Amino acid sequence: MSEFRQNSVTKEWVIIAPERAKRPDQWKHERPARDPLPPYRDGCPFCPGHEEMTPPATYSVQTDDAWSLRVVPNKFAALAPTRTPTRHAEGPFLQADGFGIAEVVIESPRHDESLSTLPVETIEQVLRAFKLRHVAMAADPRISLVTIFRNHGPLAGTSLEHPHSQIIATPIVPPHVRDPWREAQEHYDTFGTCAYCELLRAEIKQEARVIGETDHFVAFCPWSSKTPFEVRVFPRRHHASYTWSHDSELYDLAYLLKDALERLRVGLGNPDYNLLIRSAASGDEDARHLHWYLVIVPKLSTTAGFEMGTGIYINPTAPEVAAEFLRKVNLSEA
Amino acid sequence: MSEFRQNSVTKEWVIIAPERAKRPDQWKHERPARDPLPPYRDGCPFCPGHEEMTPPATYSVQTDDAWSLRVVPNKFAALAPTRTPTRHAEGPFLQADGFGIAEVVIESPRHDESLSTLPVETIEQVLRAFKLRHVAMAADPRISLVTIFRNHGPLAGTSLEHPHSQIIATPIVPPHVRDPWREAQEHYDTFGTCAYCELLRAEIKQEARVIGETDHFVAFCPWSSKTPFEVRVFPRRHHASYTWSHDSELYDLAYLLKDALERLRVGLGNPDYNLLIRSAASGDEDARHLHWYLVIVPKLSTTAGFEMGTGIYINPTAPEVAAEFLRKVNLSEA
Repeated sequence: MSEFRQNSVTKEWVIIAPERAKRPDQWKHERPARDPLPPYRDGCPFCPGHEEMTPPATYSVQTDDAWSLRVVPNKFAALAPTRTPTRHAEGPFLQADGFGIAEVVIESPRHDESLSTLPVETIEQVLRAFKLRHVAMAADPRISLVTIFRNHGPLAGTSLEHPHSQIIATPIVPPHVRDPWREAQEHYDTFGTCAYCELLRAEIKQEARVIGETDHFVAFCPWSSKTPFEVRVFPRRHHASYTWSHDSELYDLAYLLKDALERLRVGLGNPDYNLLIRSAASGDEDARHLHWYLVIVPKLSTTAGFEMGTGIYINPTAPEVAAEFLRKVNLSEA
Repeated sequence: MSEFRQNSVTKEWVIIAPERAKRPDQWKHERPARDPLPPYRDGCPFCPGHEEMTPPATYSVQTDDAWSLRVVPNKFAALAPTRTPTRHAEGPFLQADGFGIAEVVIESPRHDESLSTLPVETIEQVLRAFKLRHVAMAADPRISLVTIFRNHGPLAGTSLEHPHSQIIATPIVPPHVRDPWREAQEHYDTFGTCAYCELLRAEIKQEARVIGETDHFVAFCPWSSKTPFEVRVFPRRHHASYTWSHDSELYDLAYLLKDALERLRVGLGNPDYNLLIRSAASGDEDARHLHWYLVIVPKLSTTAGFEMGTGIYINPTAPEVAAEFLRKVNLSEA
């Protein structure tokens, strides 16, 4: 029996259609849980010794004589910090030069690692780099929004093997981001509460979709998951912006993120995925109606004309089923 | 030099990033412009003689003793008309049974045709079937939105070869549809004009992105194209709903649609694509601020974390370049 479900914050709908379902383990890829890659590859711009292939680092972590993490400007960025954000209109055609800041976070010197295979301390180091670069980019008054994301595998839009994430800062807050916040603002104005905090409390209470908890964070497959095995990690503490995260919280987040990514990697055979941090725009860092979070979307299904037309995703795997499957993954197989 | 461009109606942004571009002809697939398929296939539920593999037709066109078009309920639909649209809430978790109407339009008895290879008269017949079924579904007071779409090829979400489109009627108008309409309403309330009519006039005036015109329709690669070779077909006459199309207009639309699809098929080597009719919700058929149109999105690129996070698509092929390429396609090669 299929059903519509609504995201209580954004008011977006999905269709959960279990009659179309594969069994959860049938989503598993016929490939090893770890890519068979060499620890170092000639010609990889992110491997040690090839630092001249990238622009100079904007941030790096040094261990003894070598770096263990580097953040560099994206050499092939669609946006450049040397442009201006001025907008021009000709009739209905509004445009602006491609001003923006685009950086790559090289998460490890090892070519054959991935975020989920790195030690918790190294993931914490990545999360700290995200925060520091977010703060630095948002200090530019021309920047309105900082988007931190990770594309894992070709279906998720990357062909580069070396483990890396990206940060893109734009002078624009687009409707895709603003519209759900308007709904959250309306909720706050009506009920006097953060809609995300309420949602988190309800997910914890129902338990069925939770896959992991720590002191500061909760990981769950959300009620209105658009795609099979979508995972969100919410901070328990209300804050609109990722930049408010305490250092003590980042270790906690690294632990839970590694746990979730390993469950996906081992349980589903290293699926391609996108990872994203949704965080407040510049100026909204203290907003009472916003709540930052992290989301992981494995690329297991194809969207088609119906999703394009309506934004309503048809998800054949109920998040309760996905969460139960992920909880049962035996990580000692990793 | 990359640039941001805004859709003047929806206020969505794209990044046109030509420095990342392939030359337009490099998007061309290394495959024939026509799939090498048999005219009939055993086991295909949509081939003649297999009518018992589908539920009975809700509409069909008969020529002599045989059908030339059939519309049938979708046997594997995610929604069913036998459910109820009642909504239930438990805390923040709002849901509704999977009520809806889902039908398949079998566009031809021939297994080896596609929409672009059919004669104009047959495409007109398909467009008339869309209109009649849209009207019939919208007559159910529980239905709010009728979505007509076509998935061509696996990247566009279909594995069925036999030429077909789909119609899904839902009891819900989702934010993805409603939010842009709110912008269009605001435009109308401010300027007293239809934002789509204004956009169409400006596209015609600039010419650079137009690929075809008839008495009643204009086909163009829109200013703020999200993806390479996106094509929109706008009716010149202001109407919010596709259901208002005159029969005399449908031949004109069929002609221009075939022309656009052939240019994509021959020019780009039969790319996978989604086709969609965006039309007013039930009750808004006479809205002065809405304007129905048809859109074709070839599936040439992969979206990644940045698009997921911002809704801002990075399009490496400027629509002016795409339009010039499509105008120059030699259809005598078809």
